[in-house]
Amino acid sequence: MDMQTSPATALRIDGARLWKSLMDLARIGGTPKGGVCRIALTDLDRQGRDLFVQWAREAGCSIRIDAIGNIFARRAGADDSLAPVMTGSHIDTQPTGGKFDGNYGVMAGLEVVRTLNAAGVRTRAPIEVAVWTNEEGSRFVPVMMGSGVFAGAFTLEHALAQRDAQGVSVAEALAAIGYAGQAGAAPAVGAYFEAHIEQGPVLENHERVIGVVQAALGQRWYDVTVQGMEAHAGPTPMELRQDALLAASALVAEVNRIALDRLPHARGTVGSLEVHPNSRNVIPGRVKLSVDLRAPDDAQLLDMDAALRAACARIAAERGLAIGVEQVVYFPPQPFTPHLVEAVRANAADLGYSCMDVVSGAGHDAVYVARVAPAAMVFVPCADGISHNEIEDADPAHLEAGCNVLLRAMLASAGVVA
Amino acid sequence: MDMQTSPATALRIDGARLWKSLMDLARIGGTPKGGVCRIALTDLDRQGRDLFVQWAREAGCSIRIDAIGNIFARRAGADDSLAPVMTGSHIDTQPTGGKFDGNYGVMAGLEVVRTLNAAGVRTRAPIEVAVWTNEEGSRFVPVMMGSGVFAGAFTLEHALAQRDAQGVSVAEALAAIGYAGQAGAAPAVGAYFEAHIEQGPVLENHERVIGVVQAALGQRWYDVTVQGMEAHAGPTPMELRQDALLAASALVAEVNRIALDRLPHARGTVGSLEVHPNSRNVIPGRVKLSVDLRAPDDAQLLDMDAALRAACARIAAERGLAIGVEQVVYFPPQPFTPHLVEAVRANAADLGYSCMDVVSGAGHDAVYVARVAPAAMVFVPCADGISHNEIEDADPAHLEAGCNVLLRAMLASAGVVA
Repeated sequence: MDMQTSPATALRIDGARLWKSLMDLARIGGTPKGGVCRIALTDLDRQGRDLFVQWAREAGCSIRIDAIGNIFARRAGADDSLAPVMTGSHIDTQPTGGKFDGNYGVMAGLEVVRTLNAAGVRTRAPIEVAVWTNEEGSRFVPVMMGSGVFAGAFTLEHALAQRDAQGVSVAEALAAIGYAGQAGAAPAVGAYFEAHIEQGPVLENHERVIGVVQAALGQRWYDVTVQGMEAHAGPTPMELRQDALLAASALVAEVNRIALDRLPHARGTVGSLEVHPNSRNVIPGRVKLSVDLRAPDDAQLLDMDAALRAACARIAAERGLAIGVEQVVYFPPQPFTPHLVEAVRANAADLGYSCMDVVSGAGHDAVYVARVAPAAMVFVPCADGISHNEIEDADPAHLEAGCNVLLRAMLASAGVVA
Repeated sequence: MDMQTSPATALRIDGARLWKSLMDLARIGGTPKGGVCRIALTDLDRQGRDLFVQWAREAGCSIRIDAIGNIFARRAGADDSLAPVMTGSHIDTQPTGGKFDGNYGVMAGLEVVRTLNAAGVRTRAPIEVAVWTNEEGSRFVPVMMGSGVFAGAFTLEHALAQRDAQGVSVAEALAAIGYAGQAGAAPAVGAYFEAHIEQGPVLENHERVIGVVQAALGQRWYDVTVQGMEAHAGPTPMELRQDALLAASALVAEVNRIALDRLPHARGTVGSLEVHPNSRNVIPGRVKLSVDLRAPDDAQLLDMDAALRAACARIAAERGLAIGVEQVVYFPPQPFTPHLVEAVRANAADLGYSCMDVVSGAGHDAVYVARVAPAAMVFVPCADGISHNEIEDADPAHLEAGCNVLLRAMLASAGVVA
C-alpha cells in the first residue's frame, strides 16, 4: 500500500470529537480538582467500560470480552480472517489520576474507528480497539494485569486470584461488574499501536509534538537496608558512630552517579527512604530505602546492578556497618518493533509534526503486548510532564496530532481497500 | 583544708548500699525489660519522690520544696549560714528509660550523706541533695525544667503554665502529686557537683572509670526543608530532575564534614529525615530534615552555623532547588568551673581511678546550675554507651568510684570540721 497515492492520505481525525470523548469519559469518577478517580473493577470502572462499549457499538463494532475483562471492539476488515491491527490502552486510573493517562489511548482508538466510518474507508485487516484491565495496579497487583495475562507474562489463574485490601478477588470483582468474559487463547495480533501521554518532560522540554518510542526501559527495583548503631547525638563523638543515614546518603549519591555515567537513557532513583528511630537528637540506627534502576538494554541494566552492589559493599566496608540489598522487581527491557516504529516516525514527518526518538521510562500495556505481537507507541506531551495527578493536562492540538499519527500508522499496517 | 591530713581522706562510700538504693528506687515504674518508666509529675514520680524524702529524713536531712517542685534535702553544716555545697540530678525518666540516668546522681548524693553520717563527719558548710523536676521533658517541655527555673533560664510562670498532651498544666500536675512548694528567690549555692552516667561511649572506649567534664557542648538545632519537584522516576531523565532527596543526601554528608573538620568535640547529626511522597517510583519532591550541631564554644558553633548555611545555599544553587533553614533551638556552650573541675580530677587521681577529660554532649541539670553557681560534673561509663533505653546498664564498681570522687570533691568544697 503506497500511502502517497491512497485516498487515506487525506484523512484526518476530528480533534474536537476526540476531546469531547475524553471530557465525557472523564466525568465518570471526575474529582473536584479536575482529575479522575476510576479504580479498576469498581462500579465507576464499569460505568466507564459501559460507555466505551456503547460508543463502540454505535460505531458499528462488535464487542468481545476475555476472561480477565479486557474489552476488544472490532471493526471488520475486508479480509476478516487477517490478524487485526490493534490499538488501545486502559481506562482505570490512579486514586488521584488525570483525564488522559490511558484514557487517551482508548479514545484515540475509538476516534480512528469513527474517522474511518465517516470517510467510508474499508481496511483490509480488521481494526480492534482494546481496553486493558487494571493497568494501574492501585487496587489489585500486578500492574498491567489485563495485557500481562494476554501476553502470558503471568497466568489468568494467578491474576484472578489476587485480592484487594478488603479481600475481594479479581474474579469476584470482574463478576460483580459484569465483565468476566470467555477464557481462551489470546488471538494473534497483526500489529499493536498505543498512543499515550508521555508522562514525562522530554517532549515539552525539546518542544516536540510526537515522541517516537524506541523501547521501554528495563527495570530493577531493590529494597536496601542499612544497619548501623542508634546512639545519642550529643554524647557520641563522630569517630565512634555507625550512622545509618550517613551511609544511606552516600548510597543515594551513588545511585544517581550510576545513572549519570550511563546517559542518555539510564535512570537511577531513590524514591523512598525511612529512618529509624527518626528522632532529632538520635544518630539513625537503621535506614530502609528503595532503589529503582532503569536502562534500555539488559547488558546495561546488569552493569548497573553490579555497580549498585559494589557501591553497597564499599560503603558498608568504609563505614563499618551492614548493607543488605534485595531485588524485588525485574521488568526486562522491551524494544519496540522496528518497522512499526519507523511507520510512526515516517507518518509524523509526513504530517509535518515535529518529532523525536524517545524511550518509555514507565510501563505500558504495549510493553507486554510487544512480547507476543509487533508493537509500537506514539507519545504526545503532557503539561509540565505531570501525570498520576489530578492536574494532569495535555494540549488538544497535541492529542489530535498523536491520533492522526496513530490513524496513519494503523492504516499502513491494515491496508486500505480502494 | 588539706585533704591529705584530714580523717576524711580515709572515707569511702558503701558501694553495695548505693547499688541497693538504685535497685529499690528502680522498682517504682520498673518495666518488664528491666528499665524504668517514671514520667515527670505522674503518681510514679510522686512515689519516687516520697521514697527519696523518706530516706533523706531518715538520714537526718531537712526537706525543702520550691515552687517548681525541686526537692532539696539538707544536712546541716557546722556553719549553717554558709552557702550549701550541693549535689543532685533527677529521678524522672524517659518512657523507655533506664535505672541510672539521673537516678544515679540523686542516689549518689544520698550515699554521700549516709557515709558522712556513718563516719560522724561534720562539714563546715551544709550539704544539700537536689532532685530537679522534669529533666527529661517527655511529658512537659522545656526539658531540664526544675534546674532551668532555679537558674533563671526561663520563668517559674512560664514553666507552671506548660501543658502535657492531655492539657494538664505543670501547676496542676505539681499540686496533684503534692509537690507544689514555696515560691521565692533561689538561694545561693557554694558549689554544685553532679554525678551522672556518661550516656556515651567515650569512657568505655578509652577504658577509663572517671570522666572529668570540662564543659557542656553548645547546641544549635535546625529544621531544614528541601523543595524540589516530584516526578515519575521512569519517564523523567536524570538531567531534568529536581530530586529533593539527592540534595538532602548531599546536605547529610556536609553536616558530617562540618563536624569532622572541627574534631575532637564538634558534632553534627541529621537524626530525622522525611521524604515526600516517599514512593518507590516517584522522584522525591520535598524532604524535611533536622540538623543538630554541637560545639564546646560559641565561636566554633557560630562557625558551624555559617558553614551549614553556606552548604545549603551552595547545594540549592548547584541543583536548582530551594533549601530553607530555620534554627529552632539554641543552648549556649557551658564551661564548668575550673577549680571544681580540678577538684574532680585531683580526687579521682588520689583515689587511683583512671580518668580522662571529656565534654558533655547532652544537657544536664548541672548545665543550668552552672549559670548561677560554681559547678562541675563526674561521669562514669555506661555499658556500650547506651542510655534512654531499658537496657541501660552500668558497672557497680564504676558507680562506686564516681560516688567516692563526688564525696571527696564535696568535702573539699564544704570543708571538714575536725
